Amino acid sequence: MNKQNSQNPNLFSRFHVIIPAGGVGTRLWPLSRAAAPKFLHDLTGSGSAMIRATYDRLSVLSPNRITVVTGVAHESGVLRHLPELKSADLVLEPEPKDSAAAIGLAAAILHMRNPDAIMGSFAADHVISPQDSFHDAVREAVVTAATGKIVTIGIQPTTPSTGFGYIRKGGSLDILGATSAHHVVEFVEKPNQDIARQFYNDGAYLWNAGMFVAPARLILKHLQRSQPKLYNGVVQIASVWDTSERNRAMSALWPTLPKIAIDYAVAEPAAAVGDVAVVPGNFQWEDVGDFAALGRLNPASEGSGVTVLGDRPRVYTDSATGVVVSDTQRVIALIGIENVVLVDTADALLVTTSEHAQSVKLAVDQLRAQGDHDVL
Amino acid sequence: MNKQNSQNPNLFSRFHVIIPAGGVGTRLWPLSRAAAPKFLHDLTGSGSAMIRATYDRLSVLSPNRITVVTGVAHESGVLRHLPELKSADLVLEPEPKDSAAAIGLAAAILHMRNPDAIMGSFAADHVISPQDSFHDAVREAVVTAATGKIVTIGIQPTTPSTGFGYIRKGGSLDILGATSAHHVVEFVEKPNQDIARQFYNDGAYLWNAGMFVAPARLILKHLQRSQPKLYNGVVQIASVWDTSERNRAMSALWPTLPKIAIDYAVAEPAAAVGDVAVVPGNFQWEDVGDFAALGRLNPASEGSGVTVLGDRPRVYTDSATGVVVSDTQRVIALIGIENVVLVDTADALLVTTSEHAQSVKLAVDQLRAQGDHDVL
Repeated sequence: MNKQNSQNPNLFSRFHVIIPAGGVGTRLWPLSRAAAPKFLHDLTGSGSAMIRATYDRLSVLSPNRITVVTGVAHESGVLRHLPELKSADLVLEPEPKDSAAAIGLAAAILHMRNPDAIMGSFAADHVISPQDSFHDAVREAVVTAATGKIVTIGIQPTTPSTGFGYIRKGGSLDILGATSAHHVVEFVEKPNQDIARQFYNDGAYLWNAGMFVAPARLILKHLQRSQPKLYNGVVQIASVWDTSERNRAMSALWPTLPKIAIDYAVAEPAAAVGDVAVVPGNFQWEDVGDFAALGRLNPASEGSGVTVLGDRPRVYTDSATGVVVSDTQRVIALIGIENVVLVDTADALLVTTSEHAQSVKLAVDQLRAQGDHDVL
Repeated sequence: MNKQNSQNPNLFSRFHVIIPAGGVGTRLWPLSRAAAPKFLHDLTGSGSAMIRATYDRLSVLSPNRITVVTGVAHESGVLRHLPELKSADLVLEPEPKDSAAAIGLAAAILHMRNPDAIMGSFAADHVISPQDSFHDAVREAVVTAATGKIVTIGIQPTTPSTGFGYIRKGGSLDILGATSAHHVVEFVEKPNQDIARQFYNDGAYLWNAGMFVAPARLILKHLQRSQPKLYNGVVQIASVWDTSERNRAMSALWPTLPKIAIDYAVAEPAAAVGDVAVVPGNFQWEDVGDFAALGRLNPASEGSGVTVLGDRPRVYTDSATGVVVSDTQRVIALIGIENVVLVDTADALLVTTSEHAQSVKLAVDQLRAQGDHDVL
C-alpha cells in the first residue's frame, strides 16, 4: 500500500481515528459490567485490555491522532490502559446518548481542527487478526473515503449468522488503490435463519461490523440533514472544544442531544442517496458478544476440554468441557459438566452452559429489577 | 420410657455420652475441610452446627455427662459451638489415630471415674429425626447394655444402599424394657448392588450407623484382648486424666497408640463371642456423606428447583435444579444446569452435579497431590 502513500502523501496524515468505547456487554456479565465494561478487559489472553489492543492496532495508521469516546465513569479505566491519551482527545459522555451523538461530536471536533479530516470509527471491543489484512482494508477504505464516500468495512460471513446486520454489496467502484471497494446497495437488519442462509449462499452480503471510514465533513452533512438538532448541538460543543469552555458546553448541551444510532442517523440515509461504499475485510473478526464467543476465541489447552482464562487461575477439572474465567485466586473444581461457562469474580459468580450464553442478559435484567445494582 | 427410669432409678445416671468428632468429610469439600470439618457446619438449615445439634439431642439423656473427642486443630471450633464443655470432657487428639484409640481413651476415662459407667458413642455429624424415636432407641440400648452387651443402634434400610455396612439381626433378647433388642449374628461390610438388594428384601439386615451403647468395662475388656498395646496406652493416660499430668501423658503416649477402627478392634471380635446386641432405630437418619445427601435433607423452596443453603444467599436461577451452598455474600447466577451442586466458599468453589457427588473426593485427592493445601 506504499503506492497510495506515495501517490498522495498527504492523504494518510488527514486520517484520524475515533474509538467509541461504550456498551457494558451485558451478555458477558459478571466479567463485563457497568463499572468494568468489556473493553477494559483482556478477553483473548493477549496481555492487553481490548481497548489497548484496539488503540495499538490503529496507532499504526494514525499515530497520535486517536480520539476515544466513553462514559465519564470510565475515564480512569481508559486512562489506566491508555496513559498517553491527551485530555482533548478523550470525549467523556455525561450520560449515554447512543452512537450518533458520540460519533457526531467526534466528527465535529475533527472537522473543526481540520476541515479535510477523514475519520475512521472502530469499536473498542473487537478482536481482529491478522493485523496486516485489517490495515490493508482500512487503507483501501481511506482511499475510497477520499473520493467522497462513507466506507464501511464489511466482514465476509463465515457462518449464516442471525446475530449481525448485513451489508448488500453492489458493483465495483473502480478506484485506483482501492480495488476491492464496492457500492453499497442497502443495509439489512439482523435476518431470520432462512434469510441468513440465503445471504450466506448469495455471496453479495457482508456482516456489518460497525466499522467505517469517511470524511468528517460528509458525516456532518448527513447528520445536518437527518438530525439537525443533534448536528447543531455537536457543532456548538466542538466550536469551544479546544478552549476552557469545553466542560461548560458539554454539561449544558450534551443532555439535550437526541438519542439515536449512527446507523439510522447517517448510514442508512447516506446509502439511500448512493454515498456509501464497502471494502470487504479479509480478516478474522469477532465482537465477543457472549461467552460462547469467548470459548471460540480461546481454545481449550491441550489434553483438557476446558478453556481457562484469568490471572493465575487455579482450576481443577474432571469430565468437564467449556470455558472458565477465573478473576479471583480461588481454587475452582469443576466436575462432570459439559459446555460449561463459569465466570468467577470477586462479588459475583455465573454458572451456565454455552447453549444458554444468550440468557445471561435476562439474568442481568432480573438482578437489576430486584435491586442488586452493586454487582451490575 | 419412664417405666425403666422408675424401675432402675440409678441406671440412667450411669449413662455417659461420647461424641467422636473426627473426619473431614472430604466428599463435602469445599464446605467441609481440614480447618472446618463437617460437624462444625449447619448443613440442615437448623441454625445450629451439627455438633451442637448432636450435643443437644444427647443432653436430654445424659445432661452434663458428655465427652467430645476431636483433633487439637478443632479445639476452638468445638468450644465456639459448645461453650459449656469443660476441659476435662474434651479429649484433644494430637494426631488422628482412628476410632479405637478415640473411643478407647474415652471409655478408659469414664471407667476410671465410675467403674459402672455405661457409655454411648454417637458421631458429631449425623442428622436424626424425630428426636423422641431416637431417645426411645437409646433408652432401650442403655437398658440392654446394662445386661452386659455392646448394643448397636441399627437403622431400618429405606433403600438397598451400597454405601453402608450392615448388621445381621438374630433372635430377640427378651429384655424387660428393651423389647426390640436382638442378638447380632454378624457385621457385614458394604455390599455390592445385588447383595444390598437381598439384604433389603430379607428384613433381618440393618444399616450400621456406628452408634452403640455399652458398659465402658466391656469395651475395655475386648480392647484388652484384641489390642493390648492400645488398651495399656489408653488406661495409662486415663489414670492421670483428672490430674495435672494429663497433657504430659497425652503427648507421650498418644503417638504410640495403634491406628485401628473400633469395628475391627472391638465390635467384630465381640460379635463373634455373642456379646453384641442391636436395637433397631425407628427414626430418619442421614450421615450427610455427600452433596446429594444435602439435597435430600434440604428440599428446594417452592416454585424453584434449587435448594439454597447459606447465610443471606443471593442466588438467581433460571432453568436450573439442584443444590447451591452460598458461604459468601456473592451474587450467584445459575442458568440452565440440571442437578447442579454448587458450593461457593471464600477461597474455593465447587461446581458439579449430584451424579458426580462422589467424585468430589477425587478432586480433593488431586488438589492435595498438587500441593493446594491452603484450600483443603
